[in-house]
Amino acid sequence: MLFHVKMVVNLPQDMPSEVADDIKTREREYAQALQQRGTWRHLWRIAGSYANVSIFDVEDNAELHEILSGLPLFPYMAISVTPLCRHPSSIRDDDR
Amino acid sequence: MLFHVKMVVNLPQDMPSEVADDIKTREREYAQALQQRGTWRHLWRIAGSYANVSIFDVEDNAELHEILSGLPLFPYMAISVTPLCRHPSSIRDDDR
Amino acid sequence: MLFHVKMVVNLPQDMPSEVADDIKTREREYAQALQQRGTWRHLWRIAGSYANVSIFDVEDNAELHEILSGLPLFPYMAISVTPLCRHPSSIRDDDR
Amino acid sequence: MLFHVKMVVNLPQDMPSEVADDIKTREREYAQALQQRGTWRHLWRIAGSYANVSIFDVEDNAELHEILSGLPLFPYMAISVTPLCRHPSSIRDDDR
Amino acid sequence: MLFHVKMVVNLPQDMPSEVADDIKTREREYAQALQQRGTWRHLWRIAGSYANVSIFDVEDNAELHEILSGLPLFPYMAISVTPLCRHPSSIRDDDR
Amino acid sequence: MLFHVKMVVNLPQDMPSEVADDIKTREREYAQALQQRGTWRHLWRIAGSYANVSIFDVEDNAELHEILSGLPLFPYMAISVTPLCRHPSSIRDDDR
Amino acid sequence: MLFHVKMVVNLPQDMPSEVADDIKTREREYAQALQQRGTWRHLWRIAGSYANVSIFDVEDNAELHEILSGLPLFPYMAISVTPLCRHPSSIRDDDR
Amino acid sequence: MLFHVKMVVNLPQDMPSEVADDIKTREREYAQALQQRGTWRHLWRIAGSYANVSIFDVEDNAELHEILSGLPLFPYMAISVTPLCRHPSSIRDDDR
Amino acid sequence: MLFHVKMVVNLPQDMPSEVADDIKTREREYAQALQQRGTWRHLWRIAGSYANVSIFDVEDNAELHEILSGLPLFPYMAISVTPLCRHPSSIRDDDR
Amino acid sequence: MLFHVKMVVNLPQDMPSEVADDIKTREREYAQALQQRGTWRHLWRIAGSYANVSIFDVEDNAELHEILSGLPLFPYMAISVTPLCRHPSSIRDDDR
Repeated sequence: MLFHVKMVVNLPQDMPSEVADDIKTREREYAQALQQRGTWRHLWRIAGSYANVSIFDVEDNAELHEILSGLPLFPYMAISVTPLCRHPSSIRDDDR
Repeated sequence: MLFHVKMVVNLPQDMPSEVADDIKTREREYAQALQQRGTWRHLWRIAGSYANVSIFDVEDNAELHEILSGLPLFPYMAISVTPLCRHPSSIRDDDR
Repeated sequence: MLFHVKMVVNLPQDMPSEVADDIKTREREYAQALQQRGTWRHLWRIAGSYANVSIFDVEDNAELHEILSGLPLFPYMAISVTPLCRHPSSIRDDDR
Repeated sequence: MLFHVKMVVNLPQDMPSEVADDIKTREREYAQALQQRGTWRHLWRIAGSYANVSIFDVEDNAELHEILSGLPLFPYMAISVTPLCRHPSSIRDDDR
Repeated sequence: MLFHVKMVVNLPQDMPSEVADDIKTREREYAQALQQRGTWRHLWRIAGSYANVSIFDVEDNAELHEILSGLPLFPYMAISVTPLCRHPSSIRDDDR
Repeated sequence: MLFHVKMVVNLPQDMPSEVADDIKTREREYAQALQQRGTWRHLWRIAGSYANVSIFDVEDNAELHEILSGLPLFPYMAISVTPLCRHPSSIRDDDR
Repeated sequence: MLFHVKMVVNLPQDMPSEVADDIKTREREYAQALQQRGTWRHLWRIAGSYANVSIFDVEDNAELHEILSGLPLFPYMAISVTPLCRHPSSIRDDDR
Repeated sequence: MLFHVKMVVNLPQDMPSEVADDIKTREREYAQALQQRGTWRHLWRIAGSYANVSIFDVEDNAELHEILSGLPLFPYMAISVTPLCRHPSSIRDDDR
Repeated sequence: MLFHVKMVVNLPQDMPSEVADDIKTREREYAQALQQRGTWRHLWRIAGSYANVSIFDVEDNAELHEILSGLPLFPYMAISVTPLCRHPSSIRDDDR
Repeated sequence: MLFHVKMVVNLPQDMPSEVADDIKTREREYAQALQQRGTWRHLWRIAGSYANVSIFDVEDNAELHEILSGLPLFPYMAISVTPLCRHPSSIRDDDR
């Protein structure tokens, strides 16, 4: 089941750079592990913004929440979630 | 080059159903031809809305505009365009 | 899996009353059948508005979209969907 | 009498974690006591957000305000209240 | 129990004036009967707008909805409802 | 002359509680003195919010500004002002 | 007493031009008579818009409403009213 | 050439009062000098807000920017600029 | 003097195509004549929208309004105007 | 390929002036180097704001993001990006 998720990052401007770097390193590892598992299907940068558009493939809402709330950057992001489903004009049965 | 496009359809409530059906048929053919060519990379329905989220893979802004303004539903849609690029945490060189 | 759905109805002011009445009758039957099946868990009127707040219990996003897009009032409603999950402070394992 | 309440939590990013933990512990106890009494009828997490959707069953507006303003997290939440009533298409006389 | 209600009127610009006049006449009678009963406690015009701010004193949300949805102008108004209660700095026990 | 005023309080989260208490005490005395004089005609709490809806009866815009800008909480409030006048359907000549 | 009023005109696109012309002629006469009397102190066009910014000098809110609701274009305008008063840094006692 | 400028002041709540007082004193002198020269044509307080509506009479956009960016309060204000011109219904050739 | 102007076109969906074509033909001629004169410095299509971003070089606000209000599409566009001036980091004295 | 970029600067009010000056100096050098190369085609100040409107000429979205995210002021700006293309009424084949 697919969800469209937009994440906009707002790190506090007074956060020490080593703290920020640590969070970003853990965020990358977390994101890459989920991509390897096929759960985080797509991950794109929005040009000109510290933000991304992502597609998640999860079992249900609970799994989506567990993943998003576990993001190291979660306390510093504005997240919006949109549930997706197959489009009747899609040429694919399952467009992941 | 990838673009994120959200389209929300607003057909006039007094449009005759045969006119609407004709537009929708042409829209589907148009969308499927572009998907076959690899230009319209992804096409998802937003659950609960007459709207979609799409990913386009085009040469430049001009090609994107030519495609979108040629949609049979173009006069009846609110379209928002977001340019995308590779995310530094992506595990792919080219996440299409 | 639960979804929170808000629906605001906007019937065209020039719709003949017998057309409106027919749509509303079919809407009620549709809504009551889904409530009987346990799919439409809750249905409340927003005081002072021609609008409702509802809780749906569905298998996945696709079932939710199928149900909502099949509503007789669907072409005349602004619908917003919010995916829900269990709250860690809930006293219930499954708060339907 | 039912009210729909949405709460979005914004803890200050520099709040010490033991202070935050203490507030959250008291919040959970407060929420669970009200659920036991039947006043806080439903409590759901919004997937992907530090936010909830709740249904309260109270005597009047004053009781609702007393409950909400007494929440340990009250100073850190954006709260929106919507009064509900029975929907004419509901299959229940009293949908709590 | 008090509610703050704001109503903004939008009559269709092509409504025949005798239809509009009839609705307005019935609206006035309806409003005045409720004022006489003490239910519609206050009714003020917003200067420069075809809109009003009102205070209603009702038993519960259901009575409020019944009154508002029965307004002859109901189909032509944008209505927003805010539940009120006693302010701790009020010099009155019951500020109606 | 009546004005509708909505005030939303936002005290800084790091304000010492004795400072906040002092401001609130002075705010209450200020509000009660103006209510005694008949200038602050109505004062209601918005249920679920640290906010109020008020009706002021003043000579002119200048008196209104003098009163509002003198509120001890003035630097910490978002204030919106709406000028009111008699509604043609009011049963009162002067609905204060 | 001064009020700042912004008016944005939205004539229906299917209004016959002679009807529109008649309304505009009466609007101009109405506006000029009020300017002659000193009530409509200033009247400026917003560059690029069918809209104006005006300053009115009236006795009270009721007079302002009477004037604005009597505008021939009133049913076709979005009007926003802001009460003004003397600024403490003004070099004039009465800046009309 | 006239411009309508709205300025909303947001001084940091932790700014020392002597710093704030110094800025405000310089702001007043700056504003009064420009009023004396006829550049700052009108200056009104918005009732109930720490904000003003002003009319500037300048040679061009560059002069306007130079004046506004030189305001001692400039770093602490939200400023919105609207270009004005003569209204065809104005009774004046030059309504300053 | 430069102005940034954004124009979004909304032709009525029931406008006969020959009427629309005539307006568009006149709009193009009007736009090209102003470009030839150097008044309409830049004209770009917003990709995916029936909208443009333009830069105008005019004597004053009045000339800008005369040009914009004379556009054949003026009654069918939402127009927003932003006054520009030289940026201190520009490498040009006059960036047209 | 052209992009319209709007940047609004929000420097923290407690940033030491020498830090701010250093950032601004580097920002100017960065902006001027890109203007010299022809990548940053236009750069205008928005009158009355600490903000600019710019036109960039880049190979693709990735180059745009690389440039914008490398701006010394990037962490302190709200940036909005709009892809542009040739307008059919433009008198130029390539309006840079």
